This record gives sequence, structure tokens and C-alpha cells, in this order.
Amino acid sequence: MAVIAPSRRIRRTPFSEGVEAAGVKGYTVYNHMLLPTVFESIQADYRHLKDHVQVWDVACERQVELRGPDAARLMQILTPRDLSTMQPGQCLYVPIVDETGGMLNDPVAVKLEEDRFWISIADSDLLLWVKAVAHGYRLEVSVEEPDVSPLAIQGPKAEDLMARVFGDAVRDIRFFRFRHLEFQGRDLVVARTGYSKQGGFEIYVDGSDLGMPLWQALFEAGRDLNVRAGCPNLIERIEAGLLSYGNDMTRENTPHECGLGRFCDTEEAIGCIGRDALLRVAREGPMQQVRAIEIVGDPVPPCDRAWPLIAGDNVVGQVTSAAASPDFDTNVAIGMVAMTHWYPGTELVVETPLGARPAAVQDRFWI
Amino acid sequence: MAVIAPSRRIRRTPFSEGVEAAGVKGYTVYNHMLLPTVFESIQADYRHLKDHVQVWDVACERQVELRGPDAARLMQILTPRDLSTMQPGQCLYVPIVDETGGMLNDPVAVKLEEDRFWISIADSDLLLWVKAVAHGYRLEVSVEEPDVSPLAIQGPKAEDLMARVFGDAVRDIRFFRFRHLEFQGRDLVVARTGYSKQGGFEIYVDGSDLGMPLWQALFEAGRDLNVRAGCPNLIERIEAGLLSYGNDMTRENTPHECGLGRFCDTEEAIGCIGRDALLRVAREGPMQQVRAIEIVGDPVPPCDRAWPLIAGDNVVGQVTSAAASPDFDTNVAIGMVAMTHWYPGTELVVETPLGARPAAVQDRFWI
Repeated sequence: MAVIAPSRRIRRTPFSEGVEAAGVKGYTVYNHMLLPTVFESIQADYRHLKDHVQVWDVACERQVELRGPDAARLMQILTPRDLSTMQPGQCLYVPIVDETGGMLNDPVAVKLEEDRFWISIADSDLLLWVKAVAHGYRLEVSVEEPDVSPLAIQGPKAEDLMARVFGDAVRDIRFFRFRHLEFQGRDLVVARTGYSKQGGFEIYVDGSDLGMPLWQALFEAGRDLNVRAGCPNLIERIEAGLLSYGNDMTRENTPHECGLGRFCDTEEAIGCIGRDALLRVAREGPMQQVRAIEIVGDPVPPCDRAWPLIAGDNVVGQVTSAAASPDFDTNVAIGMVAMTHWYPGTELVVETPLGARPAAVQDRFWI
Repeated sequence: MAVIAPSRRIRRTPFSEGVEAAGVKGYTVYNHMLLPTVFESIQADYRHLKDHVQVWDVACERQVELRGPDAARLMQILTPRDLSTMQPGQCLYVPIVDETGGMLNDPVAVKLEEDRFWISIADSDLLLWVKAVAHGYRLEVSVEEPDVSPLAIQGPKAEDLMARVFGDAVRDIRFFRFRHLEFQGRDLVVARTGYSKQGGFEIYVDGSDLGMPLWQALFEAGRDLNVRAGCPNLIERIEAGLLSYGNDMTRENTPHECGLGRFCDTEEAIGCIGRDALLRVAREGPMQQVRAIEIVGDPVPPCDRAWPLIAGDNVVGQVTSAAASPDFDTNVAIGMVAMTHWYPGTELVVETPLGARPAAVQDRFWI
């Protein structure tokens, strides 16, 4: 595997110093920023994540901040999810689509105040979309990328570690809610969210100067909890069915194809971009959809391109993420499958770089 | 240096197979796609580029295609450069700015027909900006990313190699012009452009299936010309003063700060986005600007973050790209310098990871 060339364009984060000291072995690039992918090994990182607690540099989840009298209106224009009852203190997973209903991003919206939101984005320059929408609609709203870098604390011991640094108030934060908590005299947004199914929090570190002090405080407080540096884990996120924008869905796909129809209120979201394009699929359902796929046999390599799913002589879908699961003793995968073949138990063939393999549609993800 | 983790999100290109067979050693990620950065070594690649001819996989220069009755109007809304005299067959370097005059991208616009353009983009999702502008302005235009992947042929022997594959018609293509030439019965746009100062062409490969056949045809035709796989070379592009979006300029900067004022006709470009914000700087000039900077002493490492430029006790700018130049026997660099210190010969200090170093503002780039 080739190395990644250093340049300012691939941005470092407020936590990079800690990540390097922890011996990061692999990176990806996400929103023009370094995102670690492996420390010890994907398998060892996976085991540790499920048993202990990890600190993740997810600064690459950049924020798009909306601020001003039209902030709430703009937020609703951006998504087919109905935001009319969203309260300050709440986080919502919001599909964002273009005028044709194609997915542009699948971020988490954070409502800070009635007239102030953060959109915590997946890997596309959503800032450019939002700025141009605000400009074209002549809205009174400021749209910027603030100096805010999320740090995730994930794993079964996450709550204990967080309580040691932020106090027992963290235990009262409900799922997809946040509170303002203090660290070194500064107010930080702490949400019960994160890109794993092991439980945990995301701290929105407001000011790069706080990055390493917070990193160090967490590691000092968590020594006896066996805290380690970690990162989103390929195996765990596939087992859990956590989709990855750019991998498991692209602008080619509607939210309904991605299984995100439950986050769309297309009838109600009058005025949202893409509504006309989505109304029919919202009523009738999609022709293909994301499914959990088991791939039989020896461990498969990472999916660096789509692998065709075959039934007889026909391509009926594709696998877009795959990994060998130690806990489930098989290859777990995420695929997009045509409605003719998406029922649980359907047996297919997947063309992997190691050759054709038997595969089967599962009734649900593994966790 | 850490390796880059494979995933579908970091897209392969139609030429990746050839790049891998040629022994690529380093990559960067550019527009969510793999871009090679080194084959033999940066120094050996540099020497070869200046002496022979190279084939570059620059598929990551993705195209934003504008097509329809409002295509030309949209193109002019996007840039402060006056496009009123632009002809089909012409390529123009066009700064694209947001409503505050901040650089969003520095692409090359390719006018295919009166109602059809390609925008060959640098590293930001300009597609999202352009789609939202077209939507907000209610323009009658289609905005898409077509399956078009540029392949660059660069170096002093580029014209000879190209003539063997496309015929002597390539010799008549003028700088920043293109022609339609045939390869295997397919019509391809071939432009005299490219991200080096060694001369050469970019072939807009229209259809991924043509990628490897064209790659192989070029290598077979160029064996006695010592053709090799190459890539944009860090040393050569700094010597030549070729800026890199994300490295030497960001959304923080106006085109005038980037030395791109000569590509702005802000007075004339009535209706372009950012005009109000740029009029004053267009008249009065910027407060800081890009400069060629020499850094004295032993070779410096690549610039993975901005290095402060110091005069006395004050930060007066920053270096954003740097490399040791074999031909000029010094460290060549690109920096942004305040007007108080931007005159040629001004002596400064630059804070590199190897410590403080003497630096001097040059009157021009090295080539």
C-alpha cells in the first residue's frame, strides 16, 4: 500500500499530535482532513473498542454553522426531514439531497439555539451547497465553517471516562441530545452520539487550542479504564449497519434507497429542495435498497471499488463495504440490492478481487 | 509516514491499473480520488519530467458539465473573469469566488459549444456550489459530473509523443486551446494545457473504458522517447509558481491576494457572484499577496501546515509550499506576505519544523 503524501491541503487536526504519539498506522482523507483508520490493527482496535473505551480524532466531521434570522428556515430547506418540533439541545440525523433527490451528505444537525445550528458533515463540501442555497434564496443567514473539531469517546466505558472529566452530568445526557459542559473554564457542547454502536459521546471542541489539553486530560483520567486512541472501525461499523457516505451511498442514490426513508417527511417538508423529485419514491418505495450481506468463505480484502452482486447472468446489485468479522466468524458486508433480490435469505454471488464468492441477503445487520 | 486506507469513497481512476503497474509509491487524495505524488522519487521524477515525457493520471481533475440554454450565463455568474469573447475551442483559467470574494476553486473552463462547458476543477466539490447556484437562480441548465477523466502528457518530448498517437494535428494546437482528435474511433478533446511548465497536453478521456487502451497506446508509442508514468511534481510546480488550491490559497483569500487579479474583470463582470465584495480590492489592491520565497540552508521537509514568516517580532506572512530544488540549489517556496514586507529582497525568518531559517522574498518564480 502506498503512503499518503503530506501537504497543507490535507489538513492536520487539533489532535494530530496525540494521534501520532499513539502510533497511528493508517489514514484516510475526509473533508480535506486526516482521519485515522488503524492504530494496532483493525482486529485489535475492534476488540478494544467493544471491551473498553477509545478516544477518536473525528475533527474531520467539520461543522457548517448557520446563524441568523433565517437559519431555521434554511435548515428546513436543506432536508426532507420535518424539523418543526426540533428543540435546542437536540441532534437529528438529516439526509441532505439535491434537486433530483440524490444524496449530497448524511450529517447530524445540532440545534444550538432557535437561530443557530451546526451541521456535522460527512465527506463532501456541504459548505459550498449551503452557502449557494442561502445566496440564491437571498436568506438572512451567515454560513461558515467554525473552528470546531469533534472528539469522540466510544466504547462501553465511555460514560465512566466522560464523568471523570466532565462530571456526572454527562450520565443524564439522552441519546442524540447534548448539554453544555465545562472544561478548563470553557463551555463545550457534549452530545450522546457517535459512529459506533458501543455507546459514547462526541465533544465539539470549540477552539483548536483546547484540543491537546482535552486529549491529555482524557488519557490521564482513563488510565485504569485502559483508554486508547482509536478511530471509526471498519468491522464494527459494518456489523452495526452504519452507512458511510461515498462508500455505501453517493449522489446516485435517494435517501429511500439508503434505508433512510424513516428520516424523510417528504409530504410535510414543503419547500425543501428535492421534494418534487422524492414524492413518488416516498409513496411507492425505491427499486433498490441497502441490505446486510454475508459473504461466505475466507476473509475478503477491503472494498476499494464496488463489487457486483450476481444472480444467474444478471447484475442485481453491488457490495460497497466488507470486512471479516471475528465475533460473527464470517465476512460482513453492506450492499445495494434490486427489489427482485432483496429478500432475506436470497442467495447471490459476489465478484470479489479474490474471485466469485457465495453471498446471502440478511434480514438485518449483525448488531 | 502512514499508509492510505483503501475504500470506495477514495475513488480509483480509469488509469489506476497502469499507475499501480508503474510502481506508484505515494498518493494524495484530490476530489475524493487517488492522485499519485511519487513514482521513483520526487527528485528523480523531477529530472525525468524536465528531460523527457511523462503520462500523468490526473483523472481527479473532475469536470463539472454545464449544458443548456443558460450554460453561458451560469458560467459568467460563477467568475469575475470576463467571458464575453470566449470562443468554443478555448480554455480559460477562471477564479471562482463565493459571495464574500473568497476563492472556492481555481479551475480551467473549457468551452465545448455555445451552450456547453466543462469546468476542470481543483480540490473542492465545486459541483455542489454550481448546482445550488443554478437552482437558486432558476436557470435552465443541466449541471453534472460526466465520466470524463483527464490524462496529462507533460515534458519537452510531449508533442512528439502525442503526434505519434493523435497525428501531427496536435502540433497546431495553441496554448490553452483544444481540438477534437480521434482515438480508436472516438472523439476526444485534446488541449495544450497542464500543471507543469515543461509543455504538454491534457486529453479529456470521455468514457472510462478508453482509459487503459489510451494509457497503453501512449507507452507503446513512446518507448524510445523514454516515456514514464509521472504526476504533478512538487519541486517543479513550486519553481514555476503554479499555485495549489488548498495549499497556497483557500476560501480565506481573494483572487487578488493569490496574484490572480489579472484574471478578474470585476468592473465588467456585472452579475458575477462576489462582485460587490471584490470591487474595492480590485481598485485598491490587496493587503497581502503570494510571493516566491527562497529558504536558505539544508533541504526542508514538505509543508504539511503553514510555516509563519517573521520580521522582528511580527508574523508578516506564511509559507504554504516548499521543496529543495536540485536545479536552483536552494529551497524554493510559495508564501503569502503582507504588503509591508513583500518587496523583492526583503529578508525574513521562516519557522520550519527544523527550526528558524533565513528566507528572502524573490522578484519572481524560478522559471
